[in-house]
Amino acid sequence: MAMDSSAKVIDGKSVAKQIRDEITAEVSRMRESIGVIPGLAVILVGDRKDSATYVRNKKKACESVGINSLEANLPEDSTEEEVLNYIAGYNDDPSVHGILVQLPLPSHMNEQNILNAVRIEKDVDGFHPLNIGRLAMRGREPLFVPCTPKGCIELLHRYNVSIKGKRAVVIGRSNIVGMPAALLLQREDATVSIVHSRTSNPEEIIRQADIIIAAVGQANMVRGSWIKPGAVIIDVGINPVEDPNSPRGYKLVGDVCYEEAIRIASAVTPVPGGVGPMTIAMLLQNTLISAKRVHHFE
Amino acid sequence: MAMDSSAKVIDGKSVAKQIRDEITAEVSRMRESIGVIPGLAVILVGDRKDSATYVRNKKKACESVGINSLEANLPEDSTEEEVLNYIAGYNDDPSVHGILVQLPLPSHMNEQNILNAVRIEKDVDGFHPLNIGRLAMRGREPLFVPCTPKGCIELLHRYNVSIKGKRAVVIGRSNIVGMPAALLLQREDATVSIVHSRTSNPEEIIRQADIIIAAVGQANMVRGSWIKPGAVIIDVGINPVEDPNSPRGYKLVGDVCYEEAIRIASAVTPVPGGVGPMTIAMLLQNTLISAKRVHHFE
Repeated sequence: MAMDSSAKVIDGKSVAKQIRDEITAEVSRMRESIGVIPGLAVILVGDRKDSATYVRNKKKACESVGINSLEANLPEDSTEEEVLNYIAGYNDDPSVHGILVQLPLPSHMNEQNILNAVRIEKDVDGFHPLNIGRLAMRGREPLFVPCTPKGCIELLHRYNVSIKGKRAVVIGRSNIVGMPAALLLQREDATVSIVHSRTSNPEEIIRQADIIIAAVGQANMVRGSWIKPGAVIIDVGINPVEDPNSPRGYKLVGDVCYEEAIRIASAVTPVPGGVGPMTIAMLLQNTLISAKRVHHFE
Repeated sequence: MAMDSSAKVIDGKSVAKQIRDEITAEVSRMRESIGVIPGLAVILVGDRKDSATYVRNKKKACESVGINSLEANLPEDSTEEEVLNYIAGYNDDPSVHGILVQLPLPSHMNEQNILNAVRIEKDVDGFHPLNIGRLAMRGREPLFVPCTPKGCIELLHRYNVSIKGKRAVVIGRSNIVGMPAALLLQREDATVSIVHSRTSNPEEIIRQADIIIAAVGQANMVRGSWIKPGAVIIDVGINPVEDPNSPRGYKLVGDVCYEEAIRIASAVTPVPGGVGPMTIAMLLQNTLISAKRVHHFE
């Protein structure tokens, strides 16, 4: 074997595939044992192309593991009440175990009102404040862990990265990734620091990390010199940057400069193909968990 | 003036007094304007001497600012249902704006069940998971901030300690102090790290802090050499240690070695007389906030 000082590439695509295979097996075991098929309802309002693509991918992912998918496509000019009516319907429908409202919503709607309307038992996104509170508290358990941060931790687990007692730095503090990722690392006994836009010396703090979760949306922000040798890097960022060599004129890069990180880290997720595929896998897992819980199926 | 290299002593007793004076004024303004008097109900189960003392102190504090205090003393062998009945009564009583269940409860009771029964609009302790979730989330507002961590931040504000962009280290991650204190510092744009029992190098991390909040319950754990010159220290610990010179045979010390800290920090809270008096002041403030909110009084 050739000597190689490069980091291990954390193959999110392959791990996600493995998890989907596990879910497929569980879904079929459940159907055969108790005749129940997990169901995920997705509500899409308006006709944003990117949102339509995301919804289509979720639908396809559901089909691939045997989860039923329901979809409500509402026109851009729907009222908040119409959306709430759909949510109420899915809340009451026993064949629906997870409800997902594709964001962003049209600007005339109050996102908070709409998300709050989803029954917490079906909130497979895990964004409900009650759920986040339970995630933050010792001795409490959330009903669902938000998909993207859950995917980050799952990657660490599947690659046998030990978390307990390790220094972990989360870059970014969004409600949907950074903050819950920090809470999850804390639950696993890491010593967590959160770096954000107001941090005066991000480089210095990031260089102390054994584990970095970057979720800030800034292309190549973290350079090789910011990384402690041997650190493990989970890069949530997906940022388009100009690329004249690409037929599309751009390529996608992470928040961490991959070419530099790969030489100094011990393991790193690529972009794309790292955290991305894990998010949908975790959504399917949350839907399965929900169906199992309501039917007391273990 | 003599040269003095000592830290400023953060006088929690005096700040708490000032806040209680402000509350007294607000309570009286409210009573005169709309005829409403804020009310706090305290439920004490059993006859632990320390709990009885705490409850008595809260009652006295209420009286001193003009807040009505109600008290339910239940015998040690009460059933969970009896306690829940009292809570239900206070939940429905419009003269009660805050409900406090004195902990610990007798071991035959499920603490979580009982705390969850308190209406979130009257949960002046701020420990409800929904409240903690809102505290963790950007763009959301908790109904109440837990009293002790709120008192810590209030001390920083009243002493004009700037928090934004500063390195803050919270030692301890309890649900009632450490974790919410970290969330509060984060809301104020500090760069927060949480040190706990599994942290491998607490000293190294603590030494980076501009602001230290210590809430770990370990006498004199933080030594002078762990402190960055000029740091500000909020010490939540109250630990009894043997003291042959005291008539009681013991004295109370914090989690930070005060004699050493005072030489290197720029400001430090004493124990007792630092955070302690702030906790009750914040409880009174939360009760006032609750009464103002329900009566739309500003």
